Amino acid sequence: MKVVTTIKEMQAEMLVQKKQGKSIGFVPTMGFLHEGHLTLINRARQENDIVVLSIFVNPLQFGPKEDFSTYPRDFERDRALAESEDVDFLFFPSVAEMYPHPSSVKVVVQDRTDVLCGKSRPGHFDGVATVITKLFNIVMPTRAYFGIKDAQQVAVIEGLVTDFNFPVQLIAVDIVRENDGLAKSSRNVNLFPDERQQATILYKSLLAAKDAITQGERNSFTLIHLIKEMITSESDGEIDYVEIFSYPELITMEELNGRIIIALAVKFTKVRLIDNLIIDIEE
Amino acid sequence: MKVVTTIKEMQAEMLVQKKQGKSIGFVPTMGFLHEGHLTLINRARQENDIVVLSIFVNPLQFGPKEDFSTYPRDFERDRALAESEDVDFLFFPSVAEMYPHPSSVKVVVQDRTDVLCGKSRPGHFDGVATVITKLFNIVMPTRAYFGIKDAQQVAVIEGLVTDFNFPVQLIAVDIVRENDGLAKSSRNVNLFPDERQQATILYKSLLAAKDAITQGERNSFTLIHLIKEMITSESDGEIDYVEIFSYPELITMEELNGRIIIALAVKFTKVRLIDNLIIDIEE
Repeated sequence: MKVVTTIKEMQAEMLVQKKQGKSIGFVPTMGFLHEGHLTLINRARQENDIVVLSIFVNPLQFGPKEDFSTYPRDFERDRALAESEDVDFLFFPSVAEMYPHPSSVKVVVQDRTDVLCGKSRPGHFDGVATVITKLFNIVMPTRAYFGIKDAQQVAVIEGLVTDFNFPVQLIAVDIVRENDGLAKSSRNVNLFPDERQQATILYKSLLAAKDAITQGERNSFTLIHLIKEMITSESDGEIDYVEIFSYPELITMEELNGRIIIALAVKFTKVRLIDNLIIDIEE
Repeated sequence: MKVVTTIKEMQAEMLVQKKQGKSIGFVPTMGFLHEGHLTLINRARQENDIVVLSIFVNPLQFGPKEDFSTYPRDFERDRALAESEDVDFLFFPSVAEMYPHPSSVKVVVQDRTDVLCGKSRPGHFDGVATVITKLFNIVMPTRAYFGIKDAQQVAVIEGLVTDFNFPVQLIAVDIVRENDGLAKSSRNVNLFPDERQQATILYKSLLAAKDAITQGERNSFTLIHLIKEMITSESDGEIDYVEIFSYPELITMEELNGRIIIALAVKFTKVRLIDNLIIDIEE
């Protein structure tokens, strides 16, 4: 595995690979790798000749009151994990390398942002779309891998790729779950034992909504009500949101059809959990 | 020469060329080709294996009161010219192909726009930067060619390429001039004969400023005054602006150093002419 810290060298390395006709699988991260990242790397490894992992804690996507400076970082641990996962190139630029001076341009995301978690993070997705634009131009990937757990991020990047015509195939990788259905997260360890048990209701409620859709239910409010009832009656979690949108447009719809996402966030004592399910409704 | 009208086909054609290791020279235009465009095409032809010309009148860069619908178009004439200049691919998409639905993202240009001609065209350069981002992703050029006559556009695109790390070499092609120094323009035919004679003062005044710099003058205001005096005394043209900035940052400077641009716009009876000179000042 080669560690590259400059944009110029990374582009030169990638051009060499592309001239040899190699496909490039790209996993952009902010580091502090967990099982979700490793799933993305494995998938990239299976589908491409070359795997590139980037580690860059992007200041542009943190709000002024957010935790840019305290965001967890452990490069040596990440490097060892990447090496063991057979990554070919680890791109690890500094902030000064990525943003040497105030940028004359930025990407502004015009929709898909004012819902779900984006509602409370103005400018966050502009920062995400801007750094992904830069990283795509630096790595020139054939395929880029993102976890669908952050479905709104995937929706925004889908819009970026489609509307800016990036010659990149976006791969949204399914949520990895524990045996009892709870979506894997490094934060799950912060659940108390009874909360850990209760938290299984999140995915169960999503599946119940899916069943209801299969049996013909199409009303968004009815389904949201069903999910909220299940979570409230089966757990002490406090519901942050339960929402249903078209996917990836993230537009509210009363009568459901086509591809939709059911997304929820629930607060437990020390941790807020998110989960979602994307469903294709055929008429 | 192959005429391509869809993004998908264009990207597929370009990937074939790139896999063969071919360099791609790209000349983006809004069509109605004139001698300036042909100069860009010739330069691209000399320096690359493959030459791509795009013709797309981009609605995003026209203001609500500007002339998008009446902008001159003559595809058959342009096609014949491109063919005779040995262009390999002519990319000619429709507006519906480039903007099939409201875009979820756009490029916002954060500086270099609020001076010169950009001052009176809010949003114009956002539209330019957005369509160039799309075209770069579609054509994937090795080199892209722009005329330095529109120096502000070149400055904005230089920022776009640098700050978004596009793997594209930007080539700013010198202004082509008549024998008497007047910058070539399709609009020159709209000068009355006496104005055509007077108009030579534009370039002469730029050269006089350059001479003054060579002889040690570094004060921006003194040089601007010199140019304005020359134009006013030697022509009936009405000065729109004479400005000096750092280049490509387009920042005002009182004491000149480094790379600078002197740019001017002068109105004659039926036509407004622009010209500029970029000078490297070594201390």
